[in-house]
Amino acid sequence: MDEHDILTRCLRALAADFTPAHRLLDDVAVLQCDQALAISTDTVVEGVHFPAGALSAEQIARRALRVNLSDLAASAATPLCYLLGLQLPPLTDLDWMAGFAGGLREDQEHFGIRLAGGDTVRTPGPLAVSITVMGRVARDGTLPRTDTEDGDVLAVTGTIGDAWLGRLELEGKLPIAAGAPTLAERFLLPAPRLEISQGLAALAHAAIDVSDGLIADVRNLCGAAGKGARISLDDAPLSEAARFHVDRGNATLEDLAAGGDDYELLFSIPRRAVPQATEIAAACGVALTVIGEVTDGPGVSAFTTDGESPGSATGGYVHSWNGSAD
Amino acid sequence: MDEHDILTRCLRALAADFTPAHRLLDDVAVLQCDQALAISTDTVVEGVHFPAGALSAEQIARRALRVNLSDLAASAATPLCYLLGLQLPPLTDLDWMAGFAGGLREDQEHFGIRLAGGDTVRTPGPLAVSITVMGRVARDGTLPRTDTEDGDVLAVTGTIGDAWLGRLELEGKLPIAAGAPTLAERFLLPAPRLEISQGLAALAHAAIDVSDGLIADVRNLCGAAGKGARISLDDAPLSEAARFHVDRGNATLEDLAAGGDDYELLFSIPRRAVPQATEIAAACGVALTVIGEVTDGPGVSAFTTDGESPGSATGGYVHSWNGSAD
Repeated sequence: MDEHDILTRCLRALAADFTPAHRLLDDVAVLQCDQALAISTDTVVEGVHFPAGALSAEQIARRALRVNLSDLAASAATPLCYLLGLQLPPLTDLDWMAGFAGGLREDQEHFGIRLAGGDTVRTPGPLAVSITVMGRVARDGTLPRTDTEDGDVLAVTGTIGDAWLGRLELEGKLPIAAGAPTLAERFLLPAPRLEISQGLAALAHAAIDVSDGLIADVRNLCGAAGKGARISLDDAPLSEAARFHVDRGNATLEDLAAGGDDYELLFSIPRRAVPQATEIAAACGVALTVIGEVTDGPGVSAFTTDGESPGSATGGYVHSWNGSAD
Repeated sequence: MDEHDILTRCLRALAADFTPAHRLLDDVAVLQCDQALAISTDTVVEGVHFPAGALSAEQIARRALRVNLSDLAASAATPLCYLLGLQLPPLTDLDWMAGFAGGLREDQEHFGIRLAGGDTVRTPGPLAVSITVMGRVARDGTLPRTDTEDGDVLAVTGTIGDAWLGRLELEGKLPIAAGAPTLAERFLLPAPRLEISQGLAALAHAAIDVSDGLIADVRNLCGAAGKGARISLDDAPLSEAARFHVDRGNATLEDLAAGGDDYELLFSIPRRAVPQATEIAAACGVALTVIGEVTDGPGVSAFTTDGESPGSATGGYVHSWNGSAD
């Protein structure tokens, strides 16, 4: 298998109905834009972002695309197209590639996004998928991260901690809790919250997708505006399956709020807008739960009934390297 | 060192004067576009695209950015911004990162491009840099790859084979030929041909950057329009340093035309426009050399004074994998 096989047999069909992609005959796609474009990139590496060997080609593809779509959701952007940077290890074969392309095709149709171009290269390292997504935003209709205000409340969609627990279940480190979807499915197939973010774009002051962990992303959101936050972990929304693990002592609320990979949205909303926001969320079939408030000072304090959580300052997933920081 | 150190100490300054990047506080940049955007992505992997351990952080950064800019050049686009996907191996430290950011800063200023966003992750594998570039194109002013016509001549900028020879010199596989720039420099620091491509946009029918190798990219260019080509390797422009290696039998003309990494531009130009094109090239300080012509049938024939080159059909760099193609 060489890159031409991958292009002609697997990837070209994914760009077929997107004129600017020129059937991937060119290295460059030319977009005729008449409105603002939101752009973002995220890379996932096998063995880092998901356990090596645990995911099918289709699952890897869909998860990589959805992780990127979640960034568009946080900006209230409508998916338009994406570029695909693929680093494939030596033993990759066409069956795997066909499965990968099949996963992309399914989610392209689901989310209305098309392949605009890409680059496929060999690597002696692990599989890595680097996607750049582009979405349309109405002029001034984007949801920035930096406009959080004093007195706003913080509200999160869906449930928190499922994906972190699901990864542990996948790795055989936890017993499997019943659920629909299962916790493993919540890890494998995140649900980018595109609909609700467009619904709340005019109401919310700022938003972020929860990828590093709830506490870390509260800090990222409020810190971008020079603000702090006070949140109640007891109010963090949990699925029944997550509650099962907490009740049995398999995980603490702090664990779930630090775990990451939720791909829920965290909004900073004026307090008076909460009832309307909750209604809009319900119309999108998504729960919206107030978990705390924005404060003037810097730093995030996370409380439970037992008092302030010691993990407030440092929780969350951060890539780090052995080299010194100095 | 963690990803926040990298962001605050190295990368944020690269986005400082680009408003849509929001000082990299957001995962998403929002571009207000009022004209067409050319987008392209290219990934380079240490040990695949360049020899492991042979390049400084600054050289890796500049080469990765220039390889991408070369795609914009092939479309006659003006650099606007880029997204940076970085996969860093465990021992990466802040000194290395500072050198990498310094290389980007230098070329950002040189080419007028700014950092719009990115993602930095840990990898157990080799260093990889995945860049997505965006450029402005005048409406309908782009140079497509697909509009090659019968009777066009094929003309290439600069000289061919230098980078391939330079990599061999770097790897200690060839004696070092004198030159300014040296062959190694030609490999390390490709010169994206942005100026000449804008000069020839209205004159040429199609263009491609020569990255896979001259013969391979003649095939890519003509093939995209369903055409073929007949080229003379004796006419391929060689630097004095490359001529040194050919004269001593260190490399053949076929080797140089198959080697890749030239990042010169190959144009398909109406025959009557050649004198004017050559003048425009000269005004840009770049040589433009006619090496052959477009033919009706498919396939590329490459000739030397010894007859047809047997490598015509298959030359060029193609990423391939061990898995079966079936």
